[in-house]
Amino acid sequence: MTASYRKLELYFQRLAQLEHALTFLQWDQLVMMPPGGNESRSAAIAELHAMHHEMLVQDEVHDLLAHASDEALSPGQQTSLVEMKREWQRASCLPSDLVKAKSLAGLKCEHAWRIQKKENDWAGFLRNFREVVNLSRQEAQARLQADPGRFATPYDALLDLYCTGDSSQLIDGVFSRLREELPPLLARVVERQKGLHREIAGDFPVDQQNRLSRKLMSALGFDLQKGRLDESTHPFSTGARGDHRITTRFRSEDFIDALKATAHETGHASYEEGLPARWEGLPVGQARNLSIHESQSLLFEKQIFLSRPFITHFTPTIHACLPGSISFDDTRIWRSCTKVAPSYIRVEADEVSYPLHVIVRFEIERDLMNNDLKTEDIPTAWDEKMQGYLGLSTAGNYRQGCLQDIHWTDGSFGYFPAYTLGSLNGVQLFGAIRKAFPDWRERFIRGDIAFVREWLRTHIWSKGSTMESQQLISGATGEGTNPDHFLDYIEARYLHESL
Amino acid sequence: MTASYRKLELYFQRLAQLEHALTFLQWDQLVMMPPGGNESRSAAIAELHAMHHEMLVQDEVHDLLAHASDEALSPGQQTSLVEMKREWQRASCLPSDLVKAKSLAGLKCEHAWRIQKKENDWAGFLRNFREVVNLSRQEAQARLQADPGRFATPYDALLDLYCTGDSSQLIDGVFSRLREELPPLLARVVERQKGLHREIAGDFPVDQQNRLSRKLMSALGFDLQKGRLDESTHPFSTGARGDHRITTRFRSEDFIDALKATAHETGHASYEEGLPARWEGLPVGQARNLSIHESQSLLFEKQIFLSRPFITHFTPTIHACLPGSISFDDTRIWRSCTKVAPSYIRVEADEVSYPLHVIVRFEIERDLMNNDLKTEDIPTAWDEKMQGYLGLSTAGNYRQGCLQDIHWTDGSFGYFPAYTLGSLNGVQLFGAIRKAFPDWRERFIRGDIAFVREWLRTHIWSKGSTMESQQLISGATGEGTNPDHFLDYIEARYLHESL
Repeated sequence: MTASYRKLELYFQRLAQLEHALTFLQWDQLVMMPPGGNESRSAAIAELHAMHHEMLVQDEVHDLLAHASDEALSPGQQTSLVEMKREWQRASCLPSDLVKAKSLAGLKCEHAWRIQKKENDWAGFLRNFREVVNLSRQEAQARLQADPGRFATPYDALLDLYCTGDSSQLIDGVFSRLREELPPLLARVVERQKGLHREIAGDFPVDQQNRLSRKLMSALGFDLQKGRLDESTHPFSTGARGDHRITTRFRSEDFIDALKATAHETGHASYEEGLPARWEGLPVGQARNLSIHESQSLLFEKQIFLSRPFITHFTPTIHACLPGSISFDDTRIWRSCTKVAPSYIRVEADEVSYPLHVIVRFEIERDLMNNDLKTEDIPTAWDEKMQGYLGLSTAGNYRQGCLQDIHWTDGSFGYFPAYTLGSLNGVQLFGAIRKAFPDWRERFIRGDIAFVREWLRTHIWSKGSTMESQQLISGATGEGTNPDHFLDYIEARYLHESL
Repeated sequence: MTASYRKLELYFQRLAQLEHALTFLQWDQLVMMPPGGNESRSAAIAELHAMHHEMLVQDEVHDLLAHASDEALSPGQQTSLVEMKREWQRASCLPSDLVKAKSLAGLKCEHAWRIQKKENDWAGFLRNFREVVNLSRQEAQARLQADPGRFATPYDALLDLYCTGDSSQLIDGVFSRLREELPPLLARVVERQKGLHREIAGDFPVDQQNRLSRKLMSALGFDLQKGRLDESTHPFSTGARGDHRITTRFRSEDFIDALKATAHETGHASYEEGLPARWEGLPVGQARNLSIHESQSLLFEKQIFLSRPFITHFTPTIHACLPGSISFDDTRIWRSCTKVAPSYIRVEADEVSYPLHVIVRFEIERDLMNNDLKTEDIPTAWDEKMQGYLGLSTAGNYRQGCLQDIHWTDGSFGYFPAYTLGSLNGVQLFGAIRKAFPDWRERFIRGDIAFVREWLRTHIWSKGSTMESQQLISGATGEGTNPDHFLDYIEARYLHESL
């Protein structure tokens, strides 16, 4: 008998239809909606969220989860049940007062931050931010206590929302090595790049760039019958089976920016497209976590699109779509994409220094959530770490320091490590692909990337959430996330220009 | 105490948020969605519809409606409660088996019709259609019995879904006069138009037409910050407060077609935009019915946009946006829009013969639903009526006869009269506006139509569903729907070219 489990499936499939509605209402809000629609849209989204939450946390679900554990389930159903429980527990373990208070404090803090950041106003920010930290610490405690034994620290309980299954201990091990090895490597890369002219600039009309981005999506194997490309301030990816919506942004003086974003979001969309249809609408059928998601987007952006052979293959298409780019050959284009220079701003950072930005944030948010750092001491910690890892001081420069990111303003602590775990996982996965297909360069040069998609579909996409994050990476590459591959790759690409 | 009524408000406001989601998911499906999204979108829409239905018909709503009737409600709340009951009753009076069976039979019949229409296959259509008629008759009976005393005939119970509050007796009275007066008037118009060259043709790029349609929306007083214009196969209008989505279609050889559709849909959107914010999310705050809705769209299309003074005002804008139109002056443009010629197809019919097409359908569907006509006798009845009213025979020509429309294929009996009631109401309302503003021509010529919008806002839009359909029209014009105004208007516009 699997009656309770079957009921749960129907339940979660119904929840998934509310999620479908939310997905496209939010996409529309960012991409299509006229300004006048904001009020009614926000109200509808809030109400649908509330309905979703109510449906998920009602007593019947709790009882069904308990009964289903005693049923004779197949191994697949057992895994599915684990993921249902995870989703239920995440939603039900917080007192609703805390959820409401955190949401309000986050909205207030984020809203004011938009001005405070411009005005370099740390003191003003701190007044709102203390409450966000306070409530996030309470959230971490509540999540920790709801599942005793799973999380080692309060921070781990938050981390699990984004890097599900990757502990702070694992991350700390990986990051320690990067913290040690990357700064000297960065210095060598900067030294080597001196004198190599790398800028490309011009006037590249947006409609031409738009056509080019679509060609890139196709070249990366994405079926445009199953998705859309649009424009938005911040590129993102969302959607449902058969309907993946990605966005990019266009700057008329630079055509690389839009292409990188398009490749990145095509990676996210491809992962979603490859999720197992068998588990459609169930938690186990969803993407594993953010660090796996980011590994796919970064693999498409950095490992495929920005590889020398792919750029060689794609340059004629660039020339055909953008007459203004005709004087830039493939080497020039590749070099312009791989310029390295330490800077203050994470989102503008190159591939070599990016992990150091993340490590600064990881160490601070971990200590903050574990009560090992006071909120008011963040700027000092930030300055010390930036000096230590990147050689840049942010003393008194909050705007380009701890006020630069949106993530903490609404209490999304635990998110940042996913960027760098994703980067490392992407490099490691692509290393395994290079090993499996020694002729990968020739394939890329003639535009064949289908073998990469098939490999990823087999090892990552089709697995959904049936395996934990580190199991996925070991299953695909023979070992868990290992920073050595990233360090080797940085040397190969940035010191030897061989990737 | 108004506790039950207050609970109902919260209930219906929550239902309205599901309707918001459905509205934009359906808009997206028709306007934005890539082909690959159809399956997941259809499933999500079906599930949200089911959730909406379940929430609406649950016992608690029934009990609250009963209790609220005994509460001390304000007059506004009493009207609001009436409309809540109407919505609840419409949803709850049908056995769910019947709803499901009719939906399936309708889908099957409509699907096959798309081919059968092309192949002129009445016999094939009849095989599926008998079941649609059979189930629609059962639906009519069930709706009739659910509210004894409200409806005189089974057909009235279906009519009420579209022309809410307008009985078949009222419609029959109005239509009888049109059936008598229109055919000879039509002959006189056709005679008069002989020899007046009215064609305009050319090559008008779609992007230019698109800009022009936006200018028309603005010229008609619609705020583009509160809506969007897009393209779709069949123009339509939908949306939410502050976010009204309309579509038009573009044909490169004819620029009038898109403008008429844009004006028409701008009328629908303007009505929705003007609905009372006070009753937001409640049935009483919604548009009254389809015949009022259509009166607004036709008023914008026929009475404003296609009036001679407005065309005179707007022609320089047409010339500026469409260089290819520069040789057509305002008289030529106006004449090209007002060509009259009896034809077989309703959707292509001119303003004079259109009501006769509707009357053919009204008489047939009324007799069909009241068991006064057999399903297999439809083609004979169609041919007789077309010969009698429009002088055209459709014997054996089902494709251009009774197979031309989609409405009956899924059992939407009772819909057609709304088109002609809307036309008559639009003419009658605009007659009242002309009376109130004798300088309307001068205002239109200088581009002032704000006074029309204000008048409609006061008399129609802001009323929502607080009054019945005929009360609305009498309140605004001093009498219920009266076909004399339409007949006078046809004479004035088509015999004297004075409107």
